[in-house]
Amino acid sequence: MSGDVLVVGSVAYDDVETPSGAHKDLLGGSATYFSLSAARFTSPRLVGVVGRDFNPNDRQLLADQGVDLSGLVMDDSGDTFRWGGRYHADMNQRDTLYTHLNVFETFQPQLPSAYRDARFVFLGNIAPELQQDVLRQAKAPVFTALDTMNFWITGRRDALLAALRKVDGLIINDEEAALLTDERTILNAARGLQKLGPRTVIIKRGEHGAFLFNDDDVFYVPAYPLETVVDPTGAGDTFAGGFMGYIARTGELSPANMRRAVVAGSVMASFYVKNFNPDNLTRTTLDDVRARYEAFVRMTTCPALTL
Amino acid sequence: MSGDVLVVGSVAYDDVETPSGAHKDLLGGSATYFSLSAARFTSPRLVGVVGRDFNPNDRQLLADQGVDLSGLVMDDSGDTFRWGGRYHADMNQRDTLYTHLNVFETFQPQLPSAYRDARFVFLGNIAPELQQDVLRQAKAPVFTALDTMNFWITGRRDALLAALRKVDGLIINDEEAALLTDERTILNAARGLQKLGPRTVIIKRGEHGAFLFNDDDVFYVPAYPLETVVDPTGAGDTFAGGFMGYIARTGELSPANMRRAVVAGSVMASFYVKNFNPDNLTRTTLDDVRARYEAFVRMTTCPALTL
Repeated sequence: MSGDVLVVGSVAYDDVETPSGAHKDLLGGSATYFSLSAARFTSPRLVGVVGRDFNPNDRQLLADQGVDLSGLVMDDSGDTFRWGGRYHADMNQRDTLYTHLNVFETFQPQLPSAYRDARFVFLGNIAPELQQDVLRQAKAPVFTALDTMNFWITGRRDALLAALRKVDGLIINDEEAALLTDERTILNAARGLQKLGPRTVIIKRGEHGAFLFNDDDVFYVPAYPLETVVDPTGAGDTFAGGFMGYIARTGELSPANMRRAVVAGSVMASFYVKNFNPDNLTRTTLDDVRARYEAFVRMTTCPALTL
Repeated sequence: MSGDVLVVGSVAYDDVETPSGAHKDLLGGSATYFSLSAARFTSPRLVGVVGRDFNPNDRQLLADQGVDLSGLVMDDSGDTFRWGGRYHADMNQRDTLYTHLNVFETFQPQLPSAYRDARFVFLGNIAPELQQDVLRQAKAPVFTALDTMNFWITGRRDALLAALRKVDGLIINDEEAALLTDERTILNAARGLQKLGPRTVIIKRGEHGAFLFNDDDVFYVPAYPLETVVDPTGAGDTFAGGFMGYIARTGELSPANMRRAVVAGSVMASFYVKNFNPDNLTRTTLDDVRARYEAFVRMTTCPALTL
């Protein structure tokens, strides 16, 4: 019963500058990071589009990791989605240098028939209308979640609200949560988001960790402290891939298991941000995940009070 | 063996503006917040100075809470230290409107003889030379800690480094930690701070919680999510008072107990920031502390992995 997590999102080439250096043509995109992270736990099915410039080696890399690419369309009419960004010395701040949608601009996601029974569905950060299209094509999802961004919150609010009414989970960062709800505290923002539809709301805070609001259960997990953070691009999608991948593998939606899934997402993000390419993800084994998970448990255990 | 935590710091009147309103002549100052928080756990001994304008009712308020005021000097030559500040809509940002040191400017802390056997000593945010003076007067401290700020880090670095070599603990925020060590990640900053002297380093991150680095033990506790934060002035000193008060009451320096003390500090800060005056502190009982501590445990418990 495990496995089969479906993701729709971007597959891209990124040009990234950080204080650690500049790198071009990095394999990126939300669906890529999500899939490589989820692949530690299950067999992700990817829905996306690439252009005529897509490197066959990158297709092979994804396939070798167990990512099902039958939903990855090759559009020969143009190039692959491309994003350029520059991080500040404070890695929480970045500037987008350019966004070339290319073949992504006219992308209409179609689920191959073999994907339609997917039990776990993640709608990456794309137009909310397309997120709804994908949901309509999924026949019997058990748990669905979506990601979004400021661009859709301000520009396509009604479509986003319609999509939110149909999903079980929302994974969002704190600025987006405040923008969507007009609430300043994370507790009020989370309650406001739950009223919009999803029972499970995860609010990410970058290097400050993440909150899980799952019905009435409130859980907090820090980000793992690292000596160096080389490239945080895609850390949020890596987190989402670990979260959904863990749920898909275990097939259980209990409050305790949702907590475990959030830690699994944080574990994957902690491996990911130490390099400029997905190597840290593809090299990560389940034993690595178990060891880092134990480190999270040690770091957060409050001993019982003696008072 | 419990009790006797000594604090040196400011006793002040604050004028504070926040999005919730403006209030004048609030009883404030680092030693005040620290003492009222530590008084939940033990009997604090306060070392400080006030001026001719100090309201006898405020002295009575502190005394009623069990704060020993034999080290609080009344200086008739001037007025009490006064600070004015305005918080932004984002309560993590504030502007100082004015700082009138008044009688605090020439303050030379003298420990009454009955204070000199204090086992637990907290050096609030004052000039590092004065912090060293107080340390010299303490005969047999078991655990000492200090707080500081950007002003001393940049302006009195050598004196601060000398003070740091003599204390067991440092309680500091993340910006100050970066400024003092020139390290960008919290892990490297903490290790850099430990090399300066203190084995126990607590790095506060405001609404994002706090890290404890205690020898090799790393522990993270979030801030308690609240629906509203009315006035965060003094939250850091309230945290420090809970931390030191808990250690003094239990008299134990084990790694587990240091973790409990950090949670106790977070518990006290969570009660404190909901009001414009210290009422939330003076009303807090040990049963309130126990209940909120349990809420922290629930919020942070990572269930064991099933993988």
